[in-house]
Amino acid sequence: MDMIEADRLLANLHALREFGRRGNGVVRRCLDDADMAARYWLVERMQDAGLDAGIDGIANVLGLSPNPGPALLLGSHSDTQPAGGWLDGALGVIYGIEVAQALHDNPTTRGLAIDVASWADEESHYLGLMGSRSFCGQLDEAEIDGARNDDGHPLRSALAAQGLQGRPRFSLDTSRYRGYLEAHIEQGPWLERESKRIGVVTSIVGMRDLTIRVRGQQNHAGTTPMHLRHDAAQALFEFNHRVNQAFARIGGDHSVWTLGQVRIEPFARSIVPGLAEANLQFRAPEQARVEALQDCVLELAADFNRGAAAQLQVSVFDDTARAVAMDDNLQRALADAAAARIPGGWQYMPSGAAHDAQVLATRMPAGMLFIPSIGGISHDFTEDSHEEDIVLGCEVLADAVVDLLTRSSETA
Amino acid sequence: MDMIEADRLLANLHALREFGRRGNGVVRRCLDDADMAARYWLVERMQDAGLDAGIDGIANVLGLSPNPGPALLLGSHSDTQPAGGWLDGALGVIYGIEVAQALHDNPTTRGLAIDVASWADEESHYLGLMGSRSFCGQLDEAEIDGARNDDGHPLRSALAAQGLQGRPRFSLDTSRYRGYLEAHIEQGPWLERESKRIGVVTSIVGMRDLTIRVRGQQNHAGTTPMHLRHDAAQALFEFNHRVNQAFARIGGDHSVWTLGQVRIEPFARSIVPGLAEANLQFRAPEQARVEALQDCVLELAADFNRGAAAQLQVSVFDDTARAVAMDDNLQRALADAAAARIPGGWQYMPSGAAHDAQVLATRMPAGMLFIPSIGGISHDFTEDSHEEDIVLGCEVLADAVVDLLTRSSETA
Repeated sequence: MDMIEADRLLANLHALREFGRRGNGVVRRCLDDADMAARYWLVERMQDAGLDAGIDGIANVLGLSPNPGPALLLGSHSDTQPAGGWLDGALGVIYGIEVAQALHDNPTTRGLAIDVASWADEESHYLGLMGSRSFCGQLDEAEIDGARNDDGHPLRSALAAQGLQGRPRFSLDTSRYRGYLEAHIEQGPWLERESKRIGVVTSIVGMRDLTIRVRGQQNHAGTTPMHLRHDAAQALFEFNHRVNQAFARIGGDHSVWTLGQVRIEPFARSIVPGLAEANLQFRAPEQARVEALQDCVLELAADFNRGAAAQLQVSVFDDTARAVAMDDNLQRALADAAAARIPGGWQYMPSGAAHDAQVLATRMPAGMLFIPSIGGISHDFTEDSHEEDIVLGCEVLADAVVDLLTRSSETA
Repeated sequence: MDMIEADRLLANLHALREFGRRGNGVVRRCLDDADMAARYWLVERMQDAGLDAGIDGIANVLGLSPNPGPALLLGSHSDTQPAGGWLDGALGVIYGIEVAQALHDNPTTRGLAIDVASWADEESHYLGLMGSRSFCGQLDEAEIDGARNDDGHPLRSALAAQGLQGRPRFSLDTSRYRGYLEAHIEQGPWLERESKRIGVVTSIVGMRDLTIRVRGQQNHAGTTPMHLRHDAAQALFEFNHRVNQAFARIGGDHSVWTLGQVRIEPFARSIVPGLAEANLQFRAPEQARVEALQDCVLELAADFNRGAAAQLQVSVFDDTARAVAMDDNLQRALADAAAARIPGGWQYMPSGAAHDAQVLATRMPAGMLFIPSIGGISHDFTEDSHEEDIVLGCEVLADAVVDLLTRSSETA
């Protein structure tokens, strides 16, 4: 039985894609105009699905079923990376609306309580996992006060400019929920490589962002002999080289690390750089390994500073995304639904990406479902998934939701 | 006998420092408002010194003596690096004005012909050595049409905004000149280390700027395993490592190289960089070695592209600054003047920095004089020289000028 309407699901995904569209991709940085327009549009879709919906003081969109609990909360995020794909978090938000709408439209399921959320700023334009942390009581006013985007623009100003300043923030009432379910594209190559169409997530990796800052001596690039230079950029590159070697040794099979941002000052062709700064991000499936990788960087830095003319500082930029396991009961419901639809065509897997689900998981049972990403590509304008996988993912989610709420209302 | 007035010299240097001043340093990027205000002020100082002065269509300031030749042309540049020092090229421009003024004020030298120039954009905000190349007939309109600064702002727009569009450009009349003399701070550590107060320049190093561009595959930084990444930034860093090793082997004692600009796209913490670009600048005292270093980079790149997933392209960004020898006769005049003032306190030396003199040297005899830089520091707000060295340098230059023009008028 198909509860969901595939045409409506796809139409809504494509409609959301138009907000901030760039060719095949999308640019909706949290709190920019396209992002906010998308949020108001999501409120309308939630209302169509029978939900009482609104936007809170941190830009979270939340639609609440008028039905009493126990409820399931479905959601993800509609903001994107600077050059983002069209599915990413948008998929899970529209899945949530489609499931709520489908259950609302069907007399046999109309009494089930489905709430739907689009969390603000999952993609760290101002603060990583901002909306889900706010909802879970893990974001205080001081952190909001201090937050700025990469252009130095304060979060407070962005909230005020979008008319959200002073609005109350939604907060989680754990007594209402049986759990949180988030669907997402895999953003990696594994499902496609294994010819599977559904991934049931077992755990979400822990992540840490470190700032590596090197101070050297700015000088003339023609008249300063090589042996007298204190070149901050070359020191940073050398340190990166040592990190690569050490992490390859101790990282295990599933750790990843990335230098995604490098700044050099004064950024002039004829000047020996006096300052270099980079963001080093690393992730691992177990929190203990995340800590071990950070310890390794700190040891390498201490060692580096004993030998080098340029001095290197390491500081923690972001340590909010902790490694976390998904709930066994929710995993089982998703796995049962997948097995019924595509026997042998699904698998259990860890999530290499951070997700709002890892924040929600600190307060209630949480589960995640993946669909395959074509070529494993994500966070890029070319990100895409096959339409039949998009539809299948929503069907599996809807099946699991009905199963969980029916079971829970029986056992509650 | 001291022809020059030390107080006036220092007062003018400090007055020029006020245009674009930042603490001890100066920011006067060619054609910005501070730079243009300084140019109009220089025109007035040249007029005070009896010169017929103006600004041309490429922002060169030129003051011509009403006296017939043979003349000497004195000059340097008043634009600065993005975070520049107060002396740099400003020293040579103010020296030129002081020498012209001193000779003009003295009845015995009033008949000598001294012209003074401040060349536009020596520091490559739009085009390296732009003004001197224009003056020497080595800058065509097409190059001006295509030039943009690092922010993408067209040179043509900057010229128009400053009211220079459509003005004719000054051009060199070689029949007028005995030669070109440029004074400058050393910008390196050698004079200070050798306890010398004057450097007579023997040659100016050749310089080349290459653009290194790496195209990889932008992807999610959490879900893309290390062994499947095509990380453009890491490929660039690895290539930089190989360049460092090769240049250390073949560069000899006097070559220098610098990665002063690095751009990573999309510049996000959670994305494997898809594009990385750097400027690699290198310099050597002999042109043949400059060519050898470039050949080395091209070979390393071809080798790199055979092995790596991310593909690397090398292109020549700027090859205008050729290694060039200073004129023997002008070297001797400067050396004689220095030896008379400070016996044993001067030395011959190559210039590791590029200077407008190397452009002028392609058209007529050229010579350069250095004074020591404190700590060898330049292209930095902390750049400075001792006041007594500043005064001595101008005295030596004035002595050499009188000697050359007196000799030349006798033998002409």
